[in-house]
Amino acid sequence: MKLARLGPRGQEVPVVERADRWCDARPVTPDFDGDFFADAGLDRLRAALDDLPELAGADELRVGPPVARPPAVVCIGMNYAAHAAESGAEPPTQPVVFLKHPGTLGGPDDDVEIPRGSTRTDWEVELGVVIGERLSYAASPDEAVRHVAGFVTVNDLSERTFQLDISGGQWSKGKCCPGFTPAGPWLVTPDELDPQALGLRSWVNGEPRQDSTTADQIFDVGAVLHDLSQVMALEPGDLVLTGTPEGVALSGRFPYLAAGDVCEVEVEGLGRQRQVFVESLTAGGAAS
Amino acid sequence: MKLARLGPRGQEVPVVERADRWCDARPVTPDFDGDFFADAGLDRLRAALDDLPELAGADELRVGPPVARPPAVVCIGMNYAAHAAESGAEPPTQPVVFLKHPGTLGGPDDDVEIPRGSTRTDWEVELGVVIGERLSYAASPDEAVRHVAGFVTVNDLSERTFQLDISGGQWSKGKCCPGFTPAGPWLVTPDELDPQALGLRSWVNGEPRQDSTTADQIFDVGAVLHDLSQVMALEPGDLVLTGTPEGVALSGRFPYLAAGDVCEVEVEGLGRQRQVFVESLTAGGAAS
Repeated sequence: MKLARLGPRGQEVPVVERADRWCDARPVTPDFDGDFFADAGLDRLRAALDDLPELAGADELRVGPPVARPPAVVCIGMNYAAHAAESGAEPPTQPVVFLKHPGTLGGPDDDVEIPRGSTRTDWEVELGVVIGERLSYAASPDEAVRHVAGFVTVNDLSERTFQLDISGGQWSKGKCCPGFTPAGPWLVTPDELDPQALGLRSWVNGEPRQDSTTADQIFDVGAVLHDLSQVMALEPGDLVLTGTPEGVALSGRFPYLAAGDVCEVEVEGLGRQRQVFVESLTAGGAAS
Repeated sequence: MKLARLGPRGQEVPVVERADRWCDARPVTPDFDGDFFADAGLDRLRAALDDLPELAGADELRVGPPVARPPAVVCIGMNYAAHAAESGAEPPTQPVVFLKHPGTLGGPDDDVEIPRGSTRTDWEVELGVVIGERLSYAASPDEAVRHVAGFVTVNDLSERTFQLDISGGQWSKGKCCPGFTPAGPWLVTPDELDPQALGLRSWVNGEPRQDSTTADQIFDVGAVLHDLSQVMALEPGDLVLTGTPEGVALSGRFPYLAAGDVCEVEVEGLGRQRQVFVESLTAGGAAS
């Protein structure tokens, strides 16, 4: 199944695809959130699919993130060898973990503010994994992947000075700016794709930047979730970002993002995002 | 005012103190969460205080964390010079930021599991700050502190091998184990104390460990919140941990925690916690 959430920020309607049309999922659930996934929501949605009404005017609506606010956004760093190299680091021998503020979640095509004082705002296309069932102390990677609700395209936006230079080496300070986690357009359930055979691409102002595949991950989705589950209890609705491949501005090969730039990121089968970057003008800002 | 939440995990009743008794706050709010704080809940609670009924049997109830699940738990590292030194680090020149999974929140006296495979589970008494109003790009530390809903005692439990040795230097991997953020017993509103003049103490099996004061913070509460607000939008209900003073096991001066140990932590005026540490026996575990 392919799930999305359409409508203004905070008022998104959950929808599911049937025969290339978006159907209103509200007869099954008020939202695609942790409670929905934990309560066998995907099974109930599948059973009801043929009876759901088409959502009128779906094409006119803003696309929101395909899942509601996650309990946590957990990220894996340096999970592609060539990106570790361009960042000046050795490939890790165990998954490197940090977190983002869940309030950073945004729709795939929402404008994003360049943070005040930023000179090094950077893109990172990533395969995002949404947790469907609580996962603690998984016995194996195979068991861990059975707790996945679906996969999403994510842009793990990063301010490199905040991340690397002003927080004693702890990265989260450059990962939590408002709007820094565009997600979607869709969530695709695990029965419909192989998460280790997906192309990942990004563009700035139409010029290619990243072009890689999840086959190159150092730790695949099962390994990542198995490892995380040994040190934390993942919860239904949690969003796990599995790392970005080479081709970001941090490499020195490309300029950082500035107001007026357009960034696009795509994971094969999970849809393409398009963000316009804008100046931060008010304390409220685009992400409020 | 002094706020608490009493009752079994997930069924806590919000209460407020009046004349040394706990009064049921449910006529004002179903819970002490971000929505409550954002909607002038503390003002409404104060106005209703004389009319709230005493909660019968309050003394018999489990004490939960005094706030509901935070949108995010944001932590400041190395915020006391002597703790930075015992950790082998220089005092930071800007706040060091990392996050914990909000699912780690627990009551002040809940049992805590030693994580599987852990040999270095450590305590950290901290002053916790609960955000009352959204805070983004604060103009000054003075403005930032006006967004505080209250203060709480927190034990920022840490697994040092997970934190320091198996995550490429990113600390969150050792900060997110189930039950690793005991909070409470109370939240005290800012009108009732000076957050920069509070003793912080911890004990293991009755023996003293940490004994310091928030006066020794490198970055005070206003400076921390002002700094954070430049790189993220803090939300109502967010919990900010302001760092721990010297006297943890990482110093080499004390053994790490093991099953059977009792850890107590206290922030002056905010109450004392007491956790019994237990073996991790099942995947569900005490924190599920």
